[in-house]
Amino acid sequence: MVATVSAVSLPTHADIEGAAVVLAGMAVRTPLLPVAALTAVAGRPVWVKPETLQVTGSFKFRGAYHFISRIPPAERSRGVVAYSSGNHAQGVAAAAARFGIPATIVMPADAPATKLARTRGHGATVVLYDRNRESREEIAAAIAGSDGATLLPPYDHPWTMAGQGTIGLEIATDWDRDAESPIVLVPCSGGGLAAGIALALEARLPGACVHVVEPEGFDDHARSLAAGTRVAVDGTDGSICDALLSSTPGELTFEVNRRLVGGAHAVSDQAVLRAMKVVFDEMRLVVEPGGAVGMAALLEGMVPGNGPVVAVLSGGNVDPQVLSTAIAG
Amino acid sequence: MVATVSAVSLPTHADIEGAAVVLAGMAVRTPLLPVAALTAVAGRPVWVKPETLQVTGSFKFRGAYHFISRIPPAERSRGVVAYSSGNHAQGVAAAAARFGIPATIVMPADAPATKLARTRGHGATVVLYDRNRESREEIAAAIAGSDGATLLPPYDHPWTMAGQGTIGLEIATDWDRDAESPIVLVPCSGGGLAAGIALALEARLPGACVHVVEPEGFDDHARSLAAGTRVAVDGTDGSICDALLSSTPGELTFEVNRRLVGGAHAVSDQAVLRAMKVVFDEMRLVVEPGGAVGMAALLEGMVPGNGPVVAVLSGGNVDPQVLSTAIAG
Repeated sequence: MVATVSAVSLPTHADIEGAAVVLAGMAVRTPLLPVAALTAVAGRPVWVKPETLQVTGSFKFRGAYHFISRIPPAERSRGVVAYSSGNHAQGVAAAAARFGIPATIVMPADAPATKLARTRGHGATVVLYDRNRESREEIAAAIAGSDGATLLPPYDHPWTMAGQGTIGLEIATDWDRDAESPIVLVPCSGGGLAAGIALALEARLPGACVHVVEPEGFDDHARSLAAGTRVAVDGTDGSICDALLSSTPGELTFEVNRRLVGGAHAVSDQAVLRAMKVVFDEMRLVVEPGGAVGMAALLEGMVPGNGPVVAVLSGGNVDPQVLSTAIAG
Repeated sequence: MVATVSAVSLPTHADIEGAAVVLAGMAVRTPLLPVAALTAVAGRPVWVKPETLQVTGSFKFRGAYHFISRIPPAERSRGVVAYSSGNHAQGVAAAAARFGIPATIVMPADAPATKLARTRGHGATVVLYDRNRESREEIAAAIAGSDGATLLPPYDHPWTMAGQGTIGLEIATDWDRDAESPIVLVPCSGGGLAAGIALALEARLPGACVHVVEPEGFDDHARSLAAGTRVAVDGTDGSICDALLSSTPGELTFEVNRRLVGGAHAVSDQAVLRAMKVVFDEMRLVVEPGGAVGMAALLEGMVPGNGPVVAVLSGGNVDPQVLSTAIAG
């Protein structure tokens, strides 16, 4: 599968439409929920797209399932391998289980306990590594080489992006065509979710505009968009957003995002915790730190204008103690 | 409005269809979510209907908004009054605000500050009473008499039941017509939610069967169904399900439920807390104790057979400390 994984073509609108067909009845068709209680607070209409309700509790299932569907069957039967700190791991594990193929996931030994247990719960083999001393890419590549398994990249692949892009199709389908188009706030790490959504909206709701939101210290997309080229951050300060710790945009994702993303915001850990509490109080939804950054940017007043906003709540896999801390305020 | 409130006719299927038209675009069209993670645990397909995502965080908004829509405009402008310490209070307050009419809610003086604040936050006037010395019914009737306001009953009225019944229409619409029809587990206090859903399913998904679920000690529906007539419980042991503390079925609701309800279950506080944790872990949804009783009955193995089950999660307004206790397990 080396040829496939190194493919450099960008996903097309047709790829995203095709992914939607593949995912119908398999992924959860998440609703677009109005948040009436936030209209006054934000001074604008607010909606959320809760991928917290998706299979495995994050959007990652979409990209993983679509990717596996595109692997030729003879190769697919040899299984898949992925490296991930959490949500991609679960998405790949659950998608592989539905295809009845083996999955091996390379995970950091210090990943949240919930995410390790969940990944194993889907039947995947988990290989732990030390994130200070070992290379997860090398470990995964070795497994792929020995097993003939296909490596599922977390974001930088057209099949992955096309799967995530189905979220954009759903937003467009659910949006009132007579209403002003929204700014869509998308949590951003490698940029695959933003790229997929932006491509889908370009085709289906062209007045909409994607803004990416990152944790402070991991604002590589913001810096790269400003510079016009991919820039790395060192991320030494850490973040509670364990799902958003990439240090550079993907090559392919950035090719899409540099063209289509209209804004970038970076939020503090404290703003993220406040947003998690607002999502709990006003929506009764559980959102993980990385899934709450869009809502955080909105509540911090970072989003320009007074038109409608859609905050994509990208995942909800949070340890109970972290949620309890957030909702205690 | 005394004549209206004392109306004894039962809601018709057409009433429920009419309520759906009224609520379109006003209530949240909640999804029917598959819970793949529970299939193995429960030994059957499991779905949830999360009214936790409804406006004000419970199904009560549906009945309240539909009720107000049916009040003749000249009377409607004089406002509405209700007595409730919880979800009905917020549902009525929010519905009245959307009609631009005044709402007065009679609440106990010792109600939690957050519930008082939320009700006032929807613009309602809150009238406090001493639950040891005063009658909330008499206070509400006096307000209705002096203001000409319409009293909104919490459950025992055809307009209220018809509004709640739109949940049943949505379940029927979303159900795969080729699949076996489900048992629908409905949290039950006065019985309006169960009656509305049962009537809707009778018309639109007649193979489905409603089972009511109550807290232990408040199993007045179970006892009444067994006796064939309305029976009261004393409820002296209390329950963490603050939304489900009615001591007798409603007159009108029982007329529907005695004919259409196919089973009744009673669950313990501990089973409810465990169900809240499962809903958090597997669905990333916040559910209040009274909203979790259906899931609790399922997880306790009380539901007969191995066919599909829909658990209605009727509300999500839980104090953060209670949720934290539940999810700590």
